[in-house]
Amino acid sequence: MPAIRVALIGTQFMGRVHSHAFHTVASFFPLDAPPDMTVICGRNPERTHAMAERFGWRESSLDWRKVIARKDIDLVDVATPGDTHAEIAIAALKAGKHVICEKPLANTAAEARAMAAAAKKAGTVNLCAFNYRRVPAIAHAQQMIARGDLGKIYHFRARYLQDWIMDPEFPLVWRLQKDRAGSGPHGDLNAHIVDLARFLVGDFFEVCGMMETFIKQRPVVAGDGELGRARGGKAKKMGAVTVEDAALFLARFKNCALGSFEATRFAAGRKNHNTFEVNGSKGSLVFDLEELNVLKYYNCADAATERGFRTILCTDAGHPYAGRWWPAGHIIGYEHTFTHEVWEVLRAIEGKTTVKPDFEDGSRCQDVLNAVERSVVKRCWVKV
Amino acid sequence: MPAIRVALIGTQFMGRVHSHAFHTVASFFPLDAPPDMTVICGRNPERTHAMAERFGWRESSLDWRKVIARKDIDLVDVATPGDTHAEIAIAALKAGKHVICEKPLANTAAEARAMAAAAKKAGTVNLCAFNYRRVPAIAHAQQMIARGDLGKIYHFRARYLQDWIMDPEFPLVWRLQKDRAGSGPHGDLNAHIVDLARFLVGDFFEVCGMMETFIKQRPVVAGDGELGRARGGKAKKMGAVTVEDAALFLARFKNCALGSFEATRFAAGRKNHNTFEVNGSKGSLVFDLEELNVLKYYNCADAATERGFRTILCTDAGHPYAGRWWPAGHIIGYEHTFTHEVWEVLRAIEGKTTVKPDFEDGSRCQDVLNAVERSVVKRCWVKV
Amino acid sequence: MPAIRVALIGTQFMGRVHSHAFHTVASFFPLDAPPDMTVICGRNPERTHAMAERFGWRESSLDWRKVIARKDIDLVDVATPGDTHAEIAIAALKAGKHVICEKPLANTAAEARAMAAAAKKAGTVNLCAFNYRRVPAIAHAQQMIARGDLGKIYHFRARYLQDWIMDPEFPLVWRLQKDRAGSGPHGDLNAHIVDLARFLVGDFFEVCGMMETFIKQRPVVAGDGELGRARGGKAKKMGAVTVEDAALFLARFKNCALGSFEATRFAAGRKNHNTFEVNGSKGSLVFDLEELNVLKYYNCADAATERGFRTILCTDAGHPYAGRWWPAGHIIGYEHTFTHEVWEVLRAIEGKTTVKPDFEDGSRCQDVLNAVERSVVKRCWVKV
Amino acid sequence: MPAIRVALIGTQFMGRVHSHAFHTVASFFPLDAPPDMTVICGRNPERTHAMAERFGWRESSLDWRKVIARKDIDLVDVATPGDTHAEIAIAALKAGKHVICEKPLANTAAEARAMAAAAKKAGTVNLCAFNYRRVPAIAHAQQMIARGDLGKIYHFRARYLQDWIMDPEFPLVWRLQKDRAGSGPHGDLNAHIVDLARFLVGDFFEVCGMMETFIKQRPVVAGDGELGRARGGKAKKMGAVTVEDAALFLARFKNCALGSFEATRFAAGRKNHNTFEVNGSKGSLVFDLEELNVLKYYNCADAATERGFRTILCTDAGHPYAGRWWPAGHIIGYEHTFTHEVWEVLRAIEGKTTVKPDFEDGSRCQDVLNAVERSVVKRCWVKV
Repeated sequence: MPAIRVALIGTQFMGRVHSHAFHTVASFFPLDAPPDMTVICGRNPERTHAMAERFGWRESSLDWRKVIARKDIDLVDVATPGDTHAEIAIAALKAGKHVICEKPLANTAAEARAMAAAAKKAGTVNLCAFNYRRVPAIAHAQQMIARGDLGKIYHFRARYLQDWIMDPEFPLVWRLQKDRAGSGPHGDLNAHIVDLARFLVGDFFEVCGMMETFIKQRPVVAGDGELGRARGGKAKKMGAVTVEDAALFLARFKNCALGSFEATRFAAGRKNHNTFEVNGSKGSLVFDLEELNVLKYYNCADAATERGFRTILCTDAGHPYAGRWWPAGHIIGYEHTFTHEVWEVLRAIEGKTTVKPDFEDGSRCQDVLNAVERSVVKRCWVKV
Repeated sequence: MPAIRVALIGTQFMGRVHSHAFHTVASFFPLDAPPDMTVICGRNPERTHAMAERFGWRESSLDWRKVIARKDIDLVDVATPGDTHAEIAIAALKAGKHVICEKPLANTAAEARAMAAAAKKAGTVNLCAFNYRRVPAIAHAQQMIARGDLGKIYHFRARYLQDWIMDPEFPLVWRLQKDRAGSGPHGDLNAHIVDLARFLVGDFFEVCGMMETFIKQRPVVAGDGELGRARGGKAKKMGAVTVEDAALFLARFKNCALGSFEATRFAAGRKNHNTFEVNGSKGSLVFDLEELNVLKYYNCADAATERGFRTILCTDAGHPYAGRWWPAGHIIGYEHTFTHEVWEVLRAIEGKTTVKPDFEDGSRCQDVLNAVERSVVKRCWVKV
Repeated sequence: MPAIRVALIGTQFMGRVHSHAFHTVASFFPLDAPPDMTVICGRNPERTHAMAERFGWRESSLDWRKVIARKDIDLVDVATPGDTHAEIAIAALKAGKHVICEKPLANTAAEARAMAAAAKKAGTVNLCAFNYRRVPAIAHAQQMIARGDLGKIYHFRARYLQDWIMDPEFPLVWRLQKDRAGSGPHGDLNAHIVDLARFLVGDFFEVCGMMETFIKQRPVVAGDGELGRARGGKAKKMGAVTVEDAALFLARFKNCALGSFEATRFAAGRKNHNTFEVNGSKGSLVFDLEELNVLKYYNCADAATERGFRTILCTDAGHPYAGRWWPAGHIIGYEHTFTHEVWEVLRAIEGKTTVKPDFEDGSRCQDVLNAVERSVVKRCWVKV
Repeated sequence: MPAIRVALIGTQFMGRVHSHAFHTVASFFPLDAPPDMTVICGRNPERTHAMAERFGWRESSLDWRKVIARKDIDLVDVATPGDTHAEIAIAALKAGKHVICEKPLANTAAEARAMAAAAKKAGTVNLCAFNYRRVPAIAHAQQMIARGDLGKIYHFRARYLQDWIMDPEFPLVWRLQKDRAGSGPHGDLNAHIVDLARFLVGDFFEVCGMMETFIKQRPVVAGDGELGRARGGKAKKMGAVTVEDAALFLARFKNCALGSFEATRFAAGRKNHNTFEVNGSKGSLVFDLEELNVLKYYNCADAATERGFRTILCTDAGHPYAGRWWPAGHIIGYEHTFTHEVWEVLRAIEGKTTVKPDFEDGSRCQDVLNAVERSVVKRCWVKV
């Protein structure tokens, strides 16, 4: 089978991670052929060119429409801000491409539904890039739950806590503007834990939430570049923060489990604290992204006096993905989840498997987020 | 000053803990005189007599009304199930006694308000026994927040998770019957974390919650004794569980902080997991009752590369209560919180201090719980 | 059976803990009769009298010889500094008393042997008060090892780290003077972990160690009272520290397991870090006194992908001692180990059990410590 | 500056890690030019060719002598078993190449000294690949100690515990044969922690150790390939294990700090537990490779009641290497340390810095290991 030819749209944080994944996947995971890193596409010529050099893209481009129109592209990877996902991804699907799209699938449920419909019509491989499903510990948790190790699920509680905009002098970057970002931590962080909930527990039935913007005005900066550069900017004037700083909600799943969710950028000391706990009739699981190689497991069937949460280091040959890397005890990091993700997509294109979460999953996640938003407005419970 | 003469009503779990506290307080804490353990009162003659012997009560009694009527009693400690609190405590207050009452103050907000009114009228020392305010780590957390170490509070999230009734064969004890217990983990566990929230963050503004009973029928047992005995009983027939198994809610505080609360008896592996996290503009605090000597603290003012949650072992001479016990590093346990509590009450009776949480606090806590219950029925947000 | 009549010699830290144990043991542990707290004996009249009041001793005395000579004493508890143990304990044994003696049994191996011989001759109940054998987690560890859960033992590594004399201004208290204390952390802390090693692994075969005194001169204080008071003293002149600040050694056990031991008072941040790890052919155990309710356990027989150290909260009804206190999840503290210890001694006197570690164990522990001291001088391995 | 042309000798575990490092370094770290991955060299043609394909080596070779003789090679990376290091590395140095050599530098102190001499004579860039110096947390620890944050160092205690050969059926692979491997965990694991001790604390003064082989006979397998394959082999007969299974030693540093070291492959549950603790007069540091993004730090200067070990997640922009990867809170894994290492070597070749640990360091590490071996034989302390 010939190499799969890839075009990546996006050169920022996600552009970097996806580039690295394509650059390294074949070193560790079996593929008929390594992916062909055909072209990377961005708006800033200098940056796009530099990214191509750093990660080994053969070409760079400034026009995503032209890229999509190319015949020599099999897979389009959309790693741009959320307000552009629908347009690019739908165009790529219409052009018959396989498509990876960064999460959240879209800024609105309507866009997400259109994308899922386009994906269904296209019939190509499509993935909404909720990379945390590819953390070995989480993939293993899913397998344990699926095979019944936890019994009936009673509770799922998840939080995704960060603290990077606590400083009131932190500027009004695009992520704090509703028209660009769609929302704040709700779409950025809750999207992740809602997807994990769907992965681990199942579909949502109803939700009820609350949101708050703690710091309502921030310094405006010229440009809307990456955070690093934005921070350095001299603030001339103040502008309104139009997204929430925190979003919490309660949920009931279709299988009657109870859920509790929280996303915030105002939890001092929590850098990337994506954590969940699942309680079932036979045991419990606990995860924290800041220790992503670890899964904690309580097994009710252990002897009463030897029972306790086990700290499982998910680096064994038998753990999902882990055996492809290093011997037991040698931990992996954040970006490996993207390598796993890209591998799954490439294998699906090779026809060896199907891949999830697809655009339909991305759209259903968006439906949950959307229901939460409506519940916030209505101040009551809302069916998903 | 003469010894303070104490009558304890109740001989079960709380009866044991309070007895131990009165028996040991003067060994470690300065008092004008040790308390006089005058009389313990219960319904079961054998048990009550045995308790008197074990803990050094001078007399035992089977009639709380007679006990309260005695002239030689200064302090009445009510450690009975919640449905009897109002009657006993109000009678004691009317008799001019100082009163300790176990939490929750009452099974209903109306009863609680009547008790607070009676306490106000009596003008004697009164305490609602939320003992966790007397954990050194929590008392220290309160001092840190009060002096501004955390800055403006953004988030308070608390959960109180247990797993002791997960077995469907666990019998229908009084704690699972609404007429006796008032509620399930809501009054039993959420009461504690609501009180801690009021202690640490301040008054509630509005709440929105959900509840669920996972196991709706359980074996009926004769008698309604302690759990240990109940477990052994041969179940003849099934009866309806009339309290919830889990209760979650979101909250907004008057100072605009956001709150998230959860109590359940269905979290496998969590034995007494009363945990909270407070995030403020200057730092964060984390606590877990299963490691009750530890307070975790993140200080935003630490150097960027040396910043991290500190694991503070609250056994230093400078920590609240701790210096009265052992040298640094020698941990204390659950029951010490009651010793601290009893000491505070005795000092207040000696006139050296006032004591909180009083019946007014207990009543306000009940108002929050009550608002949650209404929100569950109305399926929307409710003002406290 | 009539009450066992107790005399306690010693009014400092250990005097306090032992007093509390006698004062509370009958509230929680079954005995034919509560102990009769007949007399406490110290050198400082005021302090001794106050201790009697605080803990309920019926009399106080300033002359241990007179106390031992009394007919109405069954049990003598020696809680004085190590240089006085042999004289008092041997006298008590000769008087036909049951004897508890604080650890280390003596300051020298010769004294310890004399004490063991006297105990053997007396035939009364005798205990060397290594209280950590009575931590539920450690007692449980011993049971697990004894029943073969760990298989063949390969490694035992233990450290007992503290930091309370790191300040060079900390004064030259009696614990830093060889003639009074016998040694520094070697006899104070290594004694504990050597006893635990004997309890958990078995007898020592050979050892090789090193010692160091980091701060060789310290301010002299008047009196040699408790640390608290000493700290406040105005230092007039400097004196030589005549004990070590740290003592490390390697060991080989008779069963071929390898051991590693360390005691220091110069480990910044370690308050009472008495920790060990046992590795056997079937699993491992880890303990840390600063979390004394927890035992960590790795079971090689768990499924490969669900294997990890379990954090066992040793508060279950099935754990040693724990069921006598509170429900699962309600932790106990440092002093409870003494309550357990006193209970074991009283039961042994009641004739219901025998009790260990006895004076023979105390003497053998001293032999190990002594062999380490000789190895330090000879700079090579020494047989125990 | 033209690209640096690299030849890698070795295709097993270390071959994979080094290949990945060269393949990815330029994506994240600034270099004048990405390294040119010229040739990989191994003994097995199939495997060597496959490695070239997987990681992007332009050629593969079966003859390291020919490779070293090539003019178009600037840097030779020796990632073979220890018994071949001296011959290959010295040849490469004589050919004027820059050389990376895996640790331990050699199987004997004599070989190591010859290599250090050859490196000195060659004057090219040389590195002994103790990759753990490039863990951000450890590099940061070194900076903290160097700038005096810990004050005078009193204690360094390190252990490197694994459990991968505990099964008596595990076969007699080359790592268990003295003529190939030189030693067991002493050279494999103690080498690492000795190097870290030299990095963090300084030079050793004297040592005293012990060793043990727990399982003395193991099944012989045909071939001596990688463990994975060896495990599958059908054992025909038994052969003698000629290396130790565990090696422990005590040490005194030239600056008077005390050290304690242990390496074993028989610590059930410890997969890659490379852990150390440093205690100084101003604070302490703790590290564990199984959580390699974390450094624990106790600062004596913190307020007495807010003092505790800080859990520092070393993913901040200010931490060594970390800022080149992802935003704070996004952890890295094991192999990143090799990327950092390769970057340092390439920069040194570019003339921008010098690099340590060099062959001289590797030789001094070997001297320490050698002194321990002598102390084991002599059963007493030995000067390094």
